[in-house]
Amino acid sequence: MREKCLITGGAGFIGSHLARRLLAEGHEVTAMDNLFTGTKANIYDLLDNPRFTFMLHDVTQPFWGQFDVIYNLACPASPIHYQRNPVETTKTSFVGMLNVLELALKTKARVLHTSTSEIYGDPLCHPQPETYWGNVNTIGIRSCYDEGKRAAETISADFAREYGVDVRLVRIFNTYGPNMHPHDGRVVSNFIVQALANRDLTLYGDGHQTRSFQYVDDLLNAILALVALPKERLHAFFAPRGFDLPVVNVGNPGEFTIRELAEKTLALIPESRSQIVRKPLPKDDPQRRKPDITWAKELLDWQPTVDLDTGLRRTIEYFRSADRTAR
Amino acid sequence: MREKCLITGGAGFIGSHLARRLLAEGHEVTAMDNLFTGTKANIYDLLDNPRFTFMLHDVTQPFWGQFDVIYNLACPASPIHYQRNPVETTKTSFVGMLNVLELALKTKARVLHTSTSEIYGDPLCHPQPETYWGNVNTIGIRSCYDEGKRAAETISADFAREYGVDVRLVRIFNTYGPNMHPHDGRVVSNFIVQALANRDLTLYGDGHQTRSFQYVDDLLNAILALVALPKERLHAFFAPRGFDLPVVNVGNPGEFTIRELAEKTLALIPESRSQIVRKPLPKDDPQRRKPDITWAKELLDWQPTVDLDTGLRRTIEYFRSADRTAR
Repeated sequence: MREKCLITGGAGFIGSHLARRLLAEGHEVTAMDNLFTGTKANIYDLLDNPRFTFMLHDVTQPFWGQFDVIYNLACPASPIHYQRNPVETTKTSFVGMLNVLELALKTKARVLHTSTSEIYGDPLCHPQPETYWGNVNTIGIRSCYDEGKRAAETISADFAREYGVDVRLVRIFNTYGPNMHPHDGRVVSNFIVQALANRDLTLYGDGHQTRSFQYVDDLLNAILALVALPKERLHAFFAPRGFDLPVVNVGNPGEFTIRELAEKTLALIPESRSQIVRKPLPKDDPQRRKPDITWAKELLDWQPTVDLDTGLRRTIEYFRSADRTAR
Repeated sequence: MREKCLITGGAGFIGSHLARRLLAEGHEVTAMDNLFTGTKANIYDLLDNPRFTFMLHDVTQPFWGQFDVIYNLACPASPIHYQRNPVETTKTSFVGMLNVLELALKTKARVLHTSTSEIYGDPLCHPQPETYWGNVNTIGIRSCYDEGKRAAETISADFAREYGVDVRLVRIFNTYGPNMHPHDGRVVSNFIVQALANRDLTLYGDGHQTRSFQYVDDLLNAILALVALPKERLHAFFAPRGFDLPVVNVGNPGEFTIRELAEKTLALIPESRSQIVRKPLPKDDPQRRKPDITWAKELLDWQPTVDLDTGLRRTIEYFRSADRTAR
């Protein structure tokens, strides 16, 4: 069935891939974006598709539209961006989600909200299952993102419980791929852009902190599988687990140190003259994070299929095109 | 110096006491309240004071006024009230604080924000110092309060860092006293109202969970001491501790089990025919909570001075007046 879809943050890294996938499946897509971190370049090839509409709008401002599904992706997601205007970041998460949920309530739209592994903060439990409550500083320099995302989960749960809104949460772990913002300071794009430009690769701290890296196509598979499930099936799965709404970790549990990632990147760009250098660790940077994806496997029959070498190769290919790195 | 003060939540339990204290010190007081849990009865005796103004307004809606100090107390604080409309609760905390901070930024007002021990959730560390990050469920039935309050702390820190707003946080632990809402379901007022009406006293769980109980006058002493300190002194205290804004636990570290409280209450109301009965523990109810008040002692030269028996006696006296319990 053809669905009318709204993607907030539709010109961003993940949003633009999602738009492409939904269009390929025959749906109608409205991509809303304020173009703060998203960019027209990410969706340029979609603009002449009659089933695609670009909507220049900020999710914190009221909006209206009749959609079957709202994918709420709007929020700067890298520290360099979300710390530029921290108050706006928290507002985007909270007020944006409030606008989405109120629209969904009035129009009976389903909502897929992209939460984040950041709600686990610097986890004291490893790997992190959905039942883990997190370890987050309320007043640190990362809090604007973490706490905004936590509060968005809270109102999601309350809209589900109080008003019966069909809202589904994915907690996304570190994701990479083409269309990443080249200068957002996240480690995969950082390393690739640095290696391609023969600049040194920066390791923060000793480089032994680990991360999981998920290729964007794997994430999309999980999101679409979750949105496709009937509400009753979700209720049957989550109610016995004590959850009033669906919440699923989506990430790649393969664990790599930041140093390994740097070395892999350099190995895949053999012509690079870059070296690996170290800088001090920023405040509140989590030491380890790795998803427990038991629920995603069980519920969605899903698991990541793109290994790090393959994903890195595709991402490097994207960044090699000079006009993109210069963007 | 006479100061113009705004108290949001000024007709509530704590707000009405604060209004009385500020008036007694010679200040001008505007008490804003939407009267959801606050009540005119709490401030009835102040209405003819020329330095007092009541403002019927909801803090989530924009407002304007030139004040020297804004005391942000607006938020339903008992589970029975904050769960009645959970989405509004989170909005009151977050959007209300945003309105307060934006007004403070434009008018150079100082802000005293009342945060809560609830931001520590069900703490894994005991007692809780200000450096503890908490253990809070994002999607439980208490989350609307806890996460709203956490997000309010987050934007406070960002307004302090980004815009230099002078905002000071107290994290208030369980507080009781006259003017408590008789039917808000909190344990002290519950037990007193039950005992006075010869209804049985309800223990949730086995009654061995502990709480700290602070008499409202002690809280006011701490709040006024914190507001009185020069900004430089606060900076000198908090910067070396890694805090970008002042955050102080205010509570009584005396630890009592709920069962002890029930027994004390009955002992102070000897004519009561009430018994102690047990009910199942509600979801996410914290097992233990007790403030570490080292910072308040050092910084404010403050500590609680009203013991539980004295405070209970005064509170019982208040509730004995029949028109109040019938309210």
